Amino acid sequence: MNAPLSRIRIVLSRTSHPGNIGAAARAMKTMGLARLYLVAPKHLPEEQAIAMASGADDVLASAIVVPTLEDALEGTVLAVAMTARRRDLSAPIVWLRDAAIEAVATTAHGEVALVFGNETAGLTNQETDLCQRLAMIPAHADYSSLNLAAAVQVASYELRLAGFDVGTPPPTNEAGLPATHEEIEGLIGHLEAAAIESGFLDPAQPKRLIPRMRRLFARAMPEKEEINILRGMLAALMKK
Amino acid sequence: MNAPLSRIRIVLSRTSHPGNIGAAARAMKTMGLARLYLVAPKHLPEEQAIAMASGADDVLASAIVVPTLEDALEGTVLAVAMTARRRDLSAPIVWLRDAAIEAVATTAHGEVALVFGNETAGLTNQETDLCQRLAMIPAHADYSSLNLAAAVQVASYELRLAGFDVGTPPPTNEAGLPATHEEIEGLIGHLEAAAIESGFLDPAQPKRLIPRMRRLFARAMPEKEEINILRGMLAALMKK
Repeated sequence: MNAPLSRIRIVLSRTSHPGNIGAAARAMKTMGLARLYLVAPKHLPEEQAIAMASGADDVLASAIVVPTLEDALEGTVLAVAMTARRRDLSAPIVWLRDAAIEAVATTAHGEVALVFGNETAGLTNQETDLCQRLAMIPAHADYSSLNLAAAVQVASYELRLAGFDVGTPPPTNEAGLPATHEEIEGLIGHLEAAAIESGFLDPAQPKRLIPRMRRLFARAMPEKEEINILRGMLAALMKK
Repeated sequence: MNAPLSRIRIVLSRTSHPGNIGAAARAMKTMGLARLYLVAPKHLPEEQAIAMASGADDVLASAIVVPTLEDALEGTVLAVAMTARRRDLSAPIVWLRDAAIEAVATTAHGEVALVFGNETAGLTNQETDLCQRLAMIPAHADYSSLNLAAAVQVASYELRLAGFDVGTPPPTNEAGLPATHEEIEGLIGHLEAAAIESGFLDPAQPKRLIPRMRRLFARAMPEKEEINILRGMLAALMKK
């Protein structure tokens, strides 16, 4: 677990459905988060939660169950309330992406909590009053109700990316070595010769055939091996 | 539905659990996506799917069921395969965020598909071979298995944000009017007078009290009404 994410608590307040707690644990774990707080859940995580956790039962097993949100926020320096609606007289509302960036940055100074309310009613105003930020997922106005675990997934994803070096390249697939300029020009010369020899291209009226081929291969970024295959095929065709 | 998102298909291939189809429909709808394609689902969406769709039954009802992935991709100009693992000899692998940006941009030229595989096995190599990009969610290496609907939620969220003007401010809460410079300075002068009158501050040795107060209120960005409350309280205290 990377250091910033190890200082972030996911707090679920008054969750009704144990399956959602399990699914939230799974969502957290996929993004490298492990610290789950449950404020007065309707049911303690049991069979259904464990089924939905699907391999994230360690997150579930180490969840801390507390009676009030204040207990869950003890020791935090920043608490971000997730909300789907605007509220009067609340802390500033920010988009989730910005909240996640601030949350991860704030872990340099202490513990941070992201707080999610009950499935049906969300967080109460008393609960959001305990938080310094309100964060919103920019959902569709006509239908903004994300499933609880889905909201935890999106928030955990943003926390992970906020702590993630966006310059990190994705894992490469087994790509071959890229062809060099000369290898590509070799293929294009070969294509041109074949086009002329076959009568497809009249060298007196070349039109735009070769520039078009060059453009295609520029976009394709071919590998050495692919150039070899194409030239082998051309050579075989020209022998006929 | 905004125009780019109306040209994006979410394709679920060989889904095993109808509940996941319903939850995916809900995830899509929260982000303003409506076009669901189901390639050879194990069960057609029924009761369980509708329950999990939770208000997104319109997305479910208009889902197009086809026998093969090729059918689902008919007419698309870009197909992005979601994958949790690297593959040999595949299309380039990119992070989901970059894939979403490209997908939304490409809707200017035609239809785009995001393709999700079976819950257990993901997409086959034959399926990813039909796609021009492989996109990966940067999940935790030790536990990278997102629930299918959770992956659809994260991808739909990225598609929405890629088409979203990030300059759009979140809905404001009923904030009062911000206090002006003079109003804040008025409060600070008032505080200083109260601190001196009460004997808390020795004007001969002011230390850093006033600069500290100024710093606090600079951070707090107080509203007019809050300044009035504080000054009223100070006046009442000074009268005693």
